[in-house]
Order: sequence, then C-alpha cells, then structure tokens
Amino acid sequence: MSSPATAELLARRERALGASYRLFYEEPFAPVRGEGVWLYDKDNTPYLDAYNNVASIGHCHPAVVAAIAEQSAQLNTHTRYLHPSIVDYAEDLLSEFPEPLDNMTMTCTGSEANDLALRIARCHSGGTGIIVTRWAYHGVTSALAEVSPSLATGLPTASHVRLVDAPDSYRKTGDFVASVKAALQDMQAQGIKPAALLVDSIFSSDGVFSPANGELAAAAQCVRDAGGLYIADEVQPGFGRTGGQRWGFARDNVIPDLVTLGKPMGNGHPVAAVVGRSALFDQFGRQQRYFNTYGGNPVSCRAAHAVLRVLREEDLQTNARQVGDYLKQGLQELAERHPLIGDIRGEGLFIGVELVTDRHTQTPATACAAAIVNGLRRRQVLISATGPKANVLKIRPPLVFAKEHADLLLERLDQTLNDLG
Amino acid sequence: MSSPATAELLARRERALGASYRLFYEEPFAPVRGEGVWLYDKDNTPYLDAYNNVASIGHCHPAVVAAIAEQSAQLNTHTRYLHPSIVDYAEDLLSEFPEPLDNMTMTCTGSEANDLALRIARCHSGGTGIIVTRWAYHGVTSALAEVSPSLATGLPTASHVRLVDAPDSYRKTGDFVASVKAALQDMQAQGIKPAALLVDSIFSSDGVFSPANGELAAAAQCVRDAGGLYIADEVQPGFGRTGGQRWGFARDNVIPDLVTLGKPMGNGHPVAAVVGRSALFDQFGRQQRYFNTYGGNPVSCRAAHAVLRVLREEDLQTNARQVGDYLKQGLQELAERHPLIGDIRGEGLFIGVELVTDRHTQTPATACAAAIVNGLRRRQVLISATGPKANVLKIRPPLVFAKEHADLLLERLDQTLNDLG
Repeated sequence: MSSPATAELLARRERALGASYRLFYEEPFAPVRGEGVWLYDKDNTPYLDAYNNVASIGHCHPAVVAAIAEQSAQLNTHTRYLHPSIVDYAEDLLSEFPEPLDNMTMTCTGSEANDLALRIARCHSGGTGIIVTRWAYHGVTSALAEVSPSLATGLPTASHVRLVDAPDSYRKTGDFVASVKAALQDMQAQGIKPAALLVDSIFSSDGVFSPANGELAAAAQCVRDAGGLYIADEVQPGFGRTGGQRWGFARDNVIPDLVTLGKPMGNGHPVAAVVGRSALFDQFGRQQRYFNTYGGNPVSCRAAHAVLRVLREEDLQTNARQVGDYLKQGLQELAERHPLIGDIRGEGLFIGVELVTDRHTQTPATACAAAIVNGLRRRQVLISATGPKANVLKIRPPLVFAKEHADLLLERLDQTLNDLG
Repeated sequence: MSSPATAELLARRERALGASYRLFYEEPFAPVRGEGVWLYDKDNTPYLDAYNNVASIGHCHPAVVAAIAEQSAQLNTHTRYLHPSIVDYAEDLLSEFPEPLDNMTMTCTGSEANDLALRIARCHSGGTGIIVTRWAYHGVTSALAEVSPSLATGLPTASHVRLVDAPDSYRKTGDFVASVKAALQDMQAQGIKPAALLVDSIFSSDGVFSPANGELAAAAQCVRDAGGLYIADEVQPGFGRTGGQRWGFARDNVIPDLVTLGKPMGNGHPVAAVVGRSALFDQFGRQQRYFNTYGGNPVSCRAAHAVLRVLREEDLQTNARQVGDYLKQGLQELAERHPLIGDIRGEGLFIGVELVTDRHTQTPATACAAAIVNGLRRRQVLISATGPKANVLKIRPPLVFAKEHADLLLERLDQTLNDLG
C-alpha cells in the first residue's frame, strides 16, 4: 500500500508527466540513495539491485562521482574546442577493440549512437533496408522506433525493415542465419537495397540469447555480401557484462563494421558512442556534418574514463563471469524444485530465466513472471521480465554483484516461487 | 601557431576521432577552465566567451556544479522508479508555459526532443509531411537530418519535407507565411498529409531573424487547419535568451502545440524536453512506449532545476534584454564607421551581424566573416558565424554577459574590422 505522501507524489507526477510515463512494479519503488548493488528507500531499507545495468560498476561509484564533480567545476563545453579528455578516453576505449575498429564518434545516448550507425550504414551502402530481430529494441528515435518492434504491437512494419528470428536456444523455433538470408532475398526481390543488420549481441528484448556457434558471423557475412554493414548493438551486453568477453560480439568470433555503446558507459551519466572503421566515418563525414552538442564533452569523457578504469582495476568482467556462473548454478538447483522454471540462459551477469506453465508444451507463464517480479520487489529484490511474452525473468545487476548477493537473490526467489505454489 | 604539444594532441585527436570531427578557428582553441563569461587556456589567458549559449547561466555556475556533485553521490537512476526530482522540476518548468501546455517528456538532448516531437506530430496527424525553413537545423538523428538542410549541401530533399523561406527582415526576399501556404498546397497536391511545421523561433541557422508581426501565428494556423501541429524549436532561443520573453514563440503571441527545449536547460549537463498539451502525449503513449534511459534522471533534473532557479534569482532574462540592447546600440555605432556591417538584428543576447561587401547589392561577405571570427579569436574573444552564406556574425554569449563585456567585445571587434581595412 502506498503511503499518503507516495500517493500524492504519484498524482503530481501523473499530472505533470502524463499517464504514459510508466513506473515499475504494482507498488512503485522510490529509492532515495544508491551504493554498490544497493538502493535504499526513505526509511533506509536496502533493496538488492539485480536489474540495473546502467550503474554497472555500482551505484554512485566514488571514482565516477569525483570525476564528474571535479570536471563540472572546471570546464564543460563542446568538442569544437580542443580538450585532452576526449582524446585520452577515445584512445583508451579503442584499445579495447580489435582491428580495424579504430575510430569513434561520441553521442549522449545509445539511441543517438544506434541512429548515427544507421545513418552511416545508409550512407555507405546507398541502401535503406535494415534487418533486426522480431522483438528487437534499439532505441527511441523515429528511425529506431521503426526497427524496434518490441515498442509497439499492432503497428505495421516499415517497408524497408525486415524482421528475423532470434537464435532461440530454448524453443529452437527459428533459424537466425536462414532468416537473415531470406530477409535479404526478399529485400532484393522488392528492390530494397540492404543497409545493415542491426543486432543486440545478447538479444535482450527477444528473451536473452547468447549464441556462440558462428551464427552472428555467418549472418554478418551474408549482409556484407549484399552490400550492407553488420552493426553490433552493445548498449546492453558491452563493457564486460557477459563475463567471457568485453563485447558480446567477441563470443562469436566476428568483427562488426560498427559497434554501438551506451547504458553502462558512464555509470548513469549520459554518454554513448559509435565505434567503427575510420573509412566509414570519413565517408559519412564527407557527405554530412555531424556535431553533437553535449557528446564527448569533458565531463562525460572523464566520467566514462573513470568507468573504464574501474572496470579494469576491479576486474569486474571476471567477477561477472564467476558470479554469473555461480548464480546460474543456483538457479539450476531451484529449477529442480520449481517446474515453473523452463530454461536458464545468458552469459555473465546477463541472465534470463524463462518461466513456463508446462515444460513439455513450453507455454509462457507471463502472469507468473509478473507475480514473481512484484513478489521479489516486496522482498526487497529488484529484477524485471523480458521477451515477447514478458515471461523471462531478467537478472542484470551491477557488475559488483558478489556471491553473497547471488545467495540472497536465490533465497528470496525460492521463497517467492514457493508462495506462488 | 600551434605549440608542439597542441600539434601532437591534434594528431592524436584526428587518429582516434577521424578527420570529420571538426574544430573551430584556424588556430584551434584549447580552454582548460571556465567561469562566468570567461574561458581560460593553459597559460591562464582569459577569453571572452560571446558564443556559448549552452553555459547559459555562466560556465561552471556553482549552483549547478553543487547540484550535480551532490545528486551524483546520492542516486542517479531512471524514471521507472519514483523520485521527487523530476516531479518538482516538471511542475516548476511547466509554470513557465502558457495554458494549455501542461505536460512534458524529458530526453537527454535537443535532438532527442525534436525527434520525439516529430513522432508525436506524426502519430497525431497520421501524416508524414514536415515543413522547415530553407537553411534549418534541428538536430542529428536520421529524421532530423532530413529536416536540417544546413547539415549537407547537395543531398536531395526527402519527398515528405518542404522547405520554406525564413522571414528575412534584411533582404525581404521571401514571404514566410505565403511560403508555408504554398508548401501545404504542394503536399496536398502530392498526397502527402502534413504532420508539422517545425521552426526555430529565432531562425538561428537561417541567419538570426526575430519576426514579431504575427507571421508565426499565421503560419501555425495554416498548418493546424491542414491537420498538422506547430512545433516551436526553443533549443536555441528558449530560457530567456531573447530578453523580452522566456520563450521565443511568445514574441509572436502564438501558443505552439509542442515546444522543444535543450542546450541551456542544464548549463552543459545533457538534459532536454518536449513540452506540450497532455492530450498529445496521451495519444502517442497509447500507441507507443517511450522510455529514455537517462532522460529525467535525478542528476539531470537537479541540474536543470538549479539552472531555472538561477535564471530567476539573477534575473538573467532582464540582463539579456538590457545588455543585448546596449550591445546592439554599440554595434550600430560601429556600423557607422564600418560599411561591411550590413545589418544588425536579433533579440536579447542572440544577435546576428550580417556582413556584406556592398550595402546596396547586399552581397554576402563570407570570407570577411571568417576573417573576423578568427581575428577576434586571436584577440581573445569567441564568436562564430551563421546563415546560408556563413556571413552573419553570431553573438550569443552566456546570459551573465555584462555591459563591460559588451564594451570589450565592441572594442576588439572595432580593432578587427580596422585590421581588415
């Protein structure tokens, strides 16, 4: 039950922001403070954050807070003046990518990064056609809404967009590579020149899949053969979250033409980027100017650089792998007692737990997923659900998540599953 | 001449960011510190900033720095949790708008705001047609590049976009309202349903014009009659810059359907918004989800709220009007001695000085404008140039610009004009 103060804030919020400004949970959560994997409400009750991938190195990490505070007091202006912060950061970040990915352009959000990547791909290919997965999400701009079918049901797919099957390792209903080939053939039959295959390397909104059998590499090759680019959307899997590799695409031994970065890049500060081959940026730059007012300003570069350094110094990628494996093992044990759990998948600290009413028919247990998400919230653990039927528990905590936090999550999840009976 | 250290940084920058990442000035400027209207280089030489509208309440204003530092250390997460900062700010900001503009959605950049406004207009109208001025700039996304002809010359105009004449008060070559009417008729003749008229209320990239004779109101009415919306792009003129009014559109006694905000909103922190009638947001929200990861997070709301409070407490809008008028008067005096100055226009602290080789033929003096911009930079004064021929000096300082700063600018401009001979 909401307190009178909460009810009043909710009413004021709806008045000023409108009804479509959604909140999580049946009972909205109102954190006032964050630290590491914890969010605290006004009564100082700690909530275990097993969901927020943006605060990737932990809420309010002192290194990032210090960088932001210091640089904000010193200088914060645009990239048409010369400043070492963007150069230092770009060199350091690019050292994390394989050749020939040697250039980057900075933006403020993952949406701006994906949108710019589409512009570069369209400029390079001279085409308009974009291939994405059937339940993809790539951002909020006009161009990205067209390639984000998960945003709206019932809207027609734009004529230059083709939807393909995600590599669903659970139901095995689709064939990603065959689907991409068919989409390319269909585009060509209809006189649409392909510009890009745009894929989230962890297939988050499709339900969390992490293929490692060369599917991405094979699909990328098909698109390149047709004159388009392979854009790896690393906004969600990037920066070590998947544990075994810095970038999700590396799992599949493929080098993208363009890579887009966002969410965890500044641990909450709005900073994002497109990384790619210099020839692609040069080609685009000869045709069109691109200037992003806040993109790459000294504060965002200092914040992002602090995140990158902490990621290395605290070896959070290894932690993501170790704690992720530990958590998956614990979930497997829960699955032995809870038939609702149909599948456990994902990589590192990006885990999907698919709930089904029947393991044989694999029928999505959508209502149960919502009940568990809300039940965990009442038990002070924060997660969410994803997938076309919203029946996949999405467990995606800050990368400083430790085994003790995994134990707590497992204990509370067990209780919640028991309650569901 | 660049020092060896600067030359090395330039080379590193080009290697990591590519050649299309442009810098201002023949000799790039490398500030290391900012305060009020001043930017300082590494030798602590002060440069008078008469150009940067983002640091609107002054570089590194302590109120904004404190808000950012404090909130970053406390909590910075997304708007699907309940937090008072966005509600407090939204209510306060909306109190600055006339009825019926009663709702807002927060984004991170002016580009995201303009892009969202187009999505809302297209959802509302069921149309795709957009009308913008001939040399407009509205942002960097795919959809906005289509309506930003100033970004690229030689690219064809998209079939659903119509370009109209800016209300050029100097050459009087076009008729804005007649041009909008003709664009609407042309769209309808070609079966394109109008979605929006999108106009920067100070026509910045077109050369800085500030009509106040009802042109905007008349054009808005035409678009509404055709089923479209009038979107006021206040990213540049908004937040008191034009002196006589908080928002540029108010000069023309017209109430837009949607208003987009950006640049000065967070004094450099990436925060932006769309303001509009709740019915429009509701209609859009029923059709499509919109969630912006960093948009409206506590840090950006605290930063933006600090800016709004300082704007009021220091009465910077009045200062913009008074110092703007003073500066324009000083420029008029310069014009008596310098025939290069063909026209002085603008409002408050958004001033355009159009340079012509001949006042009778009004021939644009593009090369002279570049020479003056670079000459002033050598004299430690920062401005830029705008307009289709880049011959309009753009003077757009932080709003804390005082008469003594105007005097300094006028003195250095006089010297630079004298040097030009």
